[in-house]
Order: sequence, then structure tokens, then C-alpha cells
Amino acid sequence: MIVYLNGEFLPSGEARISPDDRGFVFGDGVYEVTRAVRGQPFAAEAHWKRLETGLRELGIRTSLDSGRILEIYLRLLSENALEDGEATIYLQVTRGRAPRAHAFPPATIQPTVYAFASRFSPPIEQRRAGVNAITYPDIRWSRCDIKTVNLLPNVLAKQKAVEMGGWEAVLVRDGVLIEGSSSNLFGVIDGELRTYPRTNYILPGITRQVVLELAAELGIPAREAPIFVGEMGRLEELFLTGTATDVQGIVTLDGYRVGDGVVGPITKALWEGLMGRLGSSIS
Amino acid sequence: MIVYLNGEFLPSGEARISPDDRGFVFGDGVYEVTRAVRGQPFAAEAHWKRLETGLRELGIRTSLDSGRILEIYLRLLSENALEDGEATIYLQVTRGRAPRAHAFPPATIQPTVYAFASRFSPPIEQRRAGVNAITYPDIRWSRCDIKTVNLLPNVLAKQKAVEMGGWEAVLVRDGVLIEGSSSNLFGVIDGELRTYPRTNYILPGITRQVVLELAAELGIPAREAPIFVGEMGRLEELFLTGTATDVQGIVTLDGYRVGDGVVGPITKALWEGLMGRLGSSIS
Repeated sequence: MIVYLNGEFLPSGEARISPDDRGFVFGDGVYEVTRAVRGQPFAAEAHWKRLETGLRELGIRTSLDSGRILEIYLRLLSENALEDGEATIYLQVTRGRAPRAHAFPPATIQPTVYAFASRFSPPIEQRRAGVNAITYPDIRWSRCDIKTVNLLPNVLAKQKAVEMGGWEAVLVRDGVLIEGSSSNLFGVIDGELRTYPRTNYILPGITRQVVLELAAELGIPAREAPIFVGEMGRLEELFLTGTATDVQGIVTLDGYRVGDGVVGPITKALWEGLMGRLGSSIS
Repeated sequence: MIVYLNGEFLPSGEARISPDDRGFVFGDGVYEVTRAVRGQPFAAEAHWKRLETGLRELGIRTSLDSGRILEIYLRLLSENALEDGEATIYLQVTRGRAPRAHAFPPATIQPTVYAFASRFSPPIEQRRAGVNAITYPDIRWSRCDIKTVNLLPNVLAKQKAVEMGGWEAVLVRDGVLIEGSSSNLFGVIDGELRTYPRTNYILPGITRQVVLELAAELGIPAREAPIFVGEMGRLEELFLTGTATDVQGIVTLDGYRVGDGVVGPITKALWEGLMGRLGSSIS
């Protein structure tokens, strides 16, 4: 695999950073995962804008811009023979290497930029069949809107889900179903689609936004509002969204059947709509 | 500088890790900073126990033990001519390099172990003079008892303190002064020493524990109990503790004088007591 690191394209085995990188000692950086279909990154501009917002929030200055990022993405796809079919592209920017001290280093320190592309084959059968999920306490910090690499609580939640035979953990904060450990969450109650509002407690998902647009186009009533734990028994449908999650129906939550225990009609319609937007085949 | 990385002692410029290390992409690891005085690591066993607890909490398995760690520490001190005077030794253990996926990788993945030692000269004049601090919202996750490298909220708080002309940020959660961004916090009200109880909201500081022991020895009344924001005006003394913080008096908080605006008698007595324990000179 050929990866990108600080201006160079090189074999992944040769990509090396210093353990003094602030990404390693503080998790001091942000990242994005972008989908590519037949060589074309999807919503690359929206991903770049979110990264740029994160960099600004953290006070990390780079000379990157959306044009340069797109060049890197296209070259990674080409170098790795990923221009047919589908792929995901990972991009991480950290504050760079500096002697360890919490406060920001001098502005002369160069950020570290790392990117790689991998083959992605959407698990069509899993999308149709639905997955099991568990609920798990949302113990994350209160700036979940910034897509940082401080991901330990997400790692622990996902691991717990896997250990329980689930595919994702639905994070619960103050009695509310917030989002997944690496995905946003939507539910259907009384025929109405609900997802947690854009606040500091969720990641502003690109796919989440596309799904809200699709719901409007398809005439599905939708509202950005909390789903309470006390409403779990009334959920008709429940699904996750994300760049590599697409629209993934949940059929059991903590072992209890959600709705009829199959991927419901609204979930299915939004999944098909998203696949259409992506240009991804579902047959 | 000679550092330790995965079994090797090598020049720091040659120490390199993969950007696929889970320490870099997830902040998936723990760390310790240990003080050494005249070649002797202080409370090395307590630091090791805390690291071991963190590794267990995160499910990271290593073949490290306290004997091996001590060997590494002593060799780092020797290789870097740090056996006279004082030094700090940094140790970080991450879950290692694996293809990026949130859930734990197979148990065959080897953890990454990185350590280095640096000269440390306690800023005696600053200890005597006291420092300015600010209050800052504690936006961290709710497992602050694990010493992980998910340190972005700490970085942002410390940076804010520096920008405001302060030395440390005192983190406030739910109306309570919890601890510093990289230190524990003690206050004196009505002649009684108070520090936040050992819960998931604070790091169980080694120096914090030593200071509580010293208070008992010196007959200073002490209680593990919250200091409320509403009590800030009643603080007679306020100080921070930590491996490289010693006992550091705070003389202004958010620009307001604490007590008489000088390092108070209890702070001074505990600082002197700690320096005695460390064998660190204060003349």
C-alpha cells in the first residue's frame, strides 16, 4: 500500500513518525474518513470543511486546502489501484512533533499529515439483514462535535458491543440515545424520523446530513430531537449512519427486538436513496 | 538523547513508530511521568501500579513488570548522564500497530512501549512565589482516573491558562473545583486542607497521596471533600500537586487574590515536607 505522509507518497511499511508527535502523546489532532466510488471522493468538500473547523477549534495551522487534499486523495486512489469499485480514504492532521508539554508549541512546528486509502466493499447483505446493537454509557468529553483522535471512549464502547455480539454501541447520556460510537443514530417513532440535534454532544455527520435531505425529498417527516431511553420500547425503526456505515438498520437493541425485528421501510428507503447519491450498486 | 522504544535504546532522532499505531490514531494508551533524584526513581512502584491498573482497564496486555521498568529507567538515567541532580522519566504504552478499526485488534498485536528521561530542575523561586491560575470548564470524559494519552481537553485548558498569563487551569465540573489540567488540587478553608475525593473524576495522584500522608504527619487537619465554586472567596490557601509540580502554591485565581496573595504556611510546610521525602534540595 502506498500512503501519504508529510508531502511524500511512500510504501506504508516505510511511513514512520516520531513518538514525540503530539498525535501520539496527547491525541492532539483531527481526522476524516471519506468514501470514494469509482475513483471519485464523495462529499470531499463537506469533509474538508469539517476538518478545517476542527483544526480551527484546536488552533492547528496548516497550509492544506481542499484542492491539495483532493490531489492527495486522487493520487492515493490511483497509486493503490482503487479507481474502480469503492474505497475509503483516511486523513489525519496532528499538531506535529515537539518536546512534550501540554500547552501549544511554537507556531514554527509543522503539523503532521497522514493519509491512506483502502478497498471498501459495502456489506450489502448486512445492510439488508440489520445488526444487533447495545446501549452503553456516553462517557466521552463534551466536545463530541470535533472529530479528534481522542477516541478511547469510542474504542471501549465498540469493543463492548463486539464482546456482546453486537455491531455498534448506542451511547446514552443523561437518559438520551445520542449516537453510535462511530456513527450517528436515527429512530422512527409514530412514523416520524428523529435524530439528536446538532450540538456539542454529537458529531455533525456528513451522511447524517444527506439522510436528512433525503428524508425531506422522500416526504418522510423528520425532526432533530432527542430519543429518550424511556421511548426505546416505542421505536418502530432504528438505524445508524456514517461514511462507511451508510444507512445500517438495527434490529435488536440490548437483545430486545426493535419494531418488527427487521430492517423497516423508512430505513430501507433512505439506504436506497443514499446508495443512489453515492452511485453505489446495491444489486 | 537516548530513548527507549520497544526493547531498544537508541538516539531519539532514530526512534520511529508507524502512524498506524493505535496511540496515534485513537490515543489508545496510558502513560506515567516519574521523578528521579540523584539517579533514584521516586515512588516507582506506585507509578507502576497505576500504569498496570490503566492497562488492565483498557485491556492492554504486556509482558512488562515493575522490575523491567526499573531497569529501563535506570539505563535511561545512565545513558543520558542524568544520575546526578534531578530528572523526569516519561513512559507510554499503547495497544500497538494494527489496521485501523475501533474494536481491539487480535491479542497477537504487540503493545508499543516508549520511554525517555529529561533533566528536571525544580523552579524553586516559582514554588516560593506562587503562580497565577484560571478556572476552566472540565470538559473531559468521565474516566479521569485512568492516565490515558487522550489529553486534548487538558491541552486546551493549559493553553488557555498560558494565554491568560496563568500557569495552570483549575478544572470546574458541576460547580466544584476538581483538579488542574495536569495536577491535583488542594485548598485550605477554615484551616482545614481539602482535596477532591478519589473518584472517576480525578487522577489518583502519587504526589497527592504523599501530601495527604505528610498532612497527617504534620497534624494538619485534612479531608477528601469537594471545594465548591461558591467557596472560592473563602480559600485561605490553594495549591497544586504533581510529579513535576511538587507542591505549587496558587496566589491568584482568575485574577483574584487567594488568601493573602502569598504562598501560605500550610502550602509551604507541605512543600518542604515533600522535598524532604524526595531528597530534593530547596536551598
